[in-house]
Amino acid sequence: MVVTGSELVRGERTDLNGPFLARSLLALGLEPARIEIVGDDPNELEAAVRVAVADAELVAISGGLGPTHDDRTVEVVARVAGLELVVRPELEQEIEAVSREVAERMKRDYPDFAGGVRKQATVPDGAIALGLAGTAPGLVVEIGRTPVVVLPGPPPELQRLWPNALTTPPIRRVLDGGVPPLRRTLRLFGAGESMVAQAFAEAGGDGDGVETTICARDFEVVVEILAEPAAEKRAEELTSALGASLERFLYSDDGRTVEQVVLNLCHERGLTLGTAESCTGGLIVARLTAVPGFSATTLGGIVAYSNELKERELGVSAELLAEQGAVSAEVAEAMANGARGQLGVDVAVAVTGVAGPGGGTDEKPVGLVYLHAVTPWGGKGSSFSFPGDRDSIRRRSVVAALHLVRRLLTEKRDEGGTDP
Amino acid sequence: MVVTGSELVRGERTDLNGPFLARSLLALGLEPARIEIVGDDPNELEAAVRVAVADAELVAISGGLGPTHDDRTVEVVARVAGLELVVRPELEQEIEAVSREVAERMKRDYPDFAGGVRKQATVPDGAIALGLAGTAPGLVVEIGRTPVVVLPGPPPELQRLWPNALTTPPIRRVLDGGVPPLRRTLRLFGAGESMVAQAFAEAGGDGDGVETTICARDFEVVVEILAEPAAEKRAEELTSALGASLERFLYSDDGRTVEQVVLNLCHERGLTLGTAESCTGGLIVARLTAVPGFSATTLGGIVAYSNELKERELGVSAELLAEQGAVSAEVAEAMANGARGQLGVDVAVAVTGVAGPGGGTDEKPVGLVYLHAVTPWGGKGSSFSFPGDRDSIRRRSVVAALHLVRRLLTEKRDEGGTDP
Repeated sequence: MVVTGSELVRGERTDLNGPFLARSLLALGLEPARIEIVGDDPNELEAAVRVAVADAELVAISGGLGPTHDDRTVEVVARVAGLELVVRPELEQEIEAVSREVAERMKRDYPDFAGGVRKQATVPDGAIALGLAGTAPGLVVEIGRTPVVVLPGPPPELQRLWPNALTTPPIRRVLDGGVPPLRRTLRLFGAGESMVAQAFAEAGGDGDGVETTICARDFEVVVEILAEPAAEKRAEELTSALGASLERFLYSDDGRTVEQVVLNLCHERGLTLGTAESCTGGLIVARLTAVPGFSATTLGGIVAYSNELKERELGVSAELLAEQGAVSAEVAEAMANGARGQLGVDVAVAVTGVAGPGGGTDEKPVGLVYLHAVTPWGGKGSSFSFPGDRDSIRRRSVVAALHLVRRLLTEKRDEGGTDP
Repeated sequence: MVVTGSELVRGERTDLNGPFLARSLLALGLEPARIEIVGDDPNELEAAVRVAVADAELVAISGGLGPTHDDRTVEVVARVAGLELVVRPELEQEIEAVSREVAERMKRDYPDFAGGVRKQATVPDGAIALGLAGTAPGLVVEIGRTPVVVLPGPPPELQRLWPNALTTPPIRRVLDGGVPPLRRTLRLFGAGESMVAQAFAEAGGDGDGVETTICARDFEVVVEILAEPAAEKRAEELTSALGASLERFLYSDDGRTVEQVVLNLCHERGLTLGTAESCTGGLIVARLTAVPGFSATTLGGIVAYSNELKERELGVSAELLAEQGAVSAEVAEAMANGARGQLGVDVAVAVTGVAGPGGGTDEKPVGLVYLHAVTPWGGKGSSFSFPGDRDSIRRRSVVAALHLVRRLLTEKRDEGGTDP
């Protein structure tokens, strides 16, 4: 995958296209080798495309198809392929039609757009057009035996044109060679990476055709076991050996994330779920509602950023806030109970903490976070001191809160729950 | 920047380290040329490191420092540098101390960790150690004249060790050559990319030493003007020319995002802010609360995912929900007014829509979203039909909602507000 955009290589924006294309190709049986992000400089882009075409069986390029002067991908691909650039009349008509609509909607004169239209209708001779997304045409160009897919940068547009690319003969030819790998994913909570490495070694490590990656993030360790079909038996052995030795930390062996596990647990038990958030400011409920199909489970949430709202919306008493402070185990518990009553849900989880950068004190420093979850049969609290910046403190608080609910619903004992 | 991790190259996780390092280096006056993401395969990593060392003045590598078998960055860097791997006793003691704490906290035997400790204390001969993050030591190794910074993969750990790298002599030597570029950022809402390209051309385009990128995302177009100090005058001319011709779309010329602009507008006017969210599920309030220092402005929000909560928490009448349906302009308005009353805020914004993938009908298809914002002096609604998947519909709804509030607070006329 070659991704172009100065805003991406400068880190002003995070690339979503490389990961999307990688996931899609992996599922189709190709092993993603490299995601390379370069700026708008055509020389950097040309160098990246030349290397990619030389090394890979399939190259996907995203970005640089816009109407503006700094969008040079088509020109670069034509140069690498040694192909002429030609204006495609039928493409020009399509793009013009779209642009006239846009011009009308924006109450602008079409001539403002004409230059961009001609530019976007200019493609390498012989390129396969994949249709338009916005005004940008996706393309497939063969360079030697290597098909190169050229896609627009905006993720929704790229994702809409990508399936068209997969149906073109050059891409089909490559994909027919690929066999989707067998995949097992173990998600662990509260286990250290070293401990998992130890268990992996004791289980005999990879075998021929098996590739295991062990990756820690926030509190979680994710073990990915990928195997060629021939190595299926070894992969299953390894999976069950790891599952057995790490059983007390294992919370998902089917790739489901913690929010999916929590939502399924609630759904199976016919329980509804709600949130009361202070420092996480809505991230927990946003993550729960990102999973489709659970609108009957997640009823909603209250973000009570101010003490006033903690009182009014969640029924936390002014006395408690004054005595214990908003960042305290007692207030977290009161918020959770308040959310349960106020939202009329069975299960509620609450978070209050100091996300920083300001607001820390000696006794309540930045990173101190209190969580509490309640169910019809009882509650459970925990507290953490998270390292890192505001964003990572908020993110870790979300993960910790979701696992607190999960543990409460599965009534597993709290293990490693104080391990950041 | 070379980033290693199979979970990253397979798109199972999005890299944050490349963008972080790029932003930091750009601010220090270096131009980020390339972010390359490779898997755990040591040959892929070695190839990437060799190319990077050959091309760049400075190379930063993230990931592959863990205790596990698939963490091979140190070994690869030593090979590329032609250096021996040696165990550093003082490093081993430090890492052992940390690991013993972890072992204790996890109620595990230390011997489980010993192997990982020795691995993580093994570094290329002559490497500069940057201290520990977790149990992973950051390193600086010189390969020829090119300093190579080796940092752990977890973003909080990388971000904690990075400042230490910047103080080492090899990095200082490179940075002393760099002069931070002059930067101007124009953020536009409702303007098409072609229109901006046109204005850019009319303004005379880049001049010597000026590099402008024009980038559209969601509804916004971001114009980044970077200039060498010598080209400052040209950059200022271009900035004001663009600002003038695109004035009606320009909402930020100082790099502030729309949420920062909205928060500042409220803060300056002494207004408090709240949200009522259905399909966006808390993303709006999460984005507002991600900006530090506005806890007196953003009081909170209500996520009313179910109709029941729209009635109970936001006072939307059952009749209205029955007559118009939850996804309607009328319900969006009632939600906004309800949030204003319930949260006791001056300004409230509400969103209700069909984020999909399910739940769409012929008359209310997936992507249909209604927004409404209210202030003490009046309200404003708008509706959209967004393309794309659940995630992008939710994301675009957030951007649209923030701009609706901004426009209401600045009383600009609604321009291009119906342009997805």
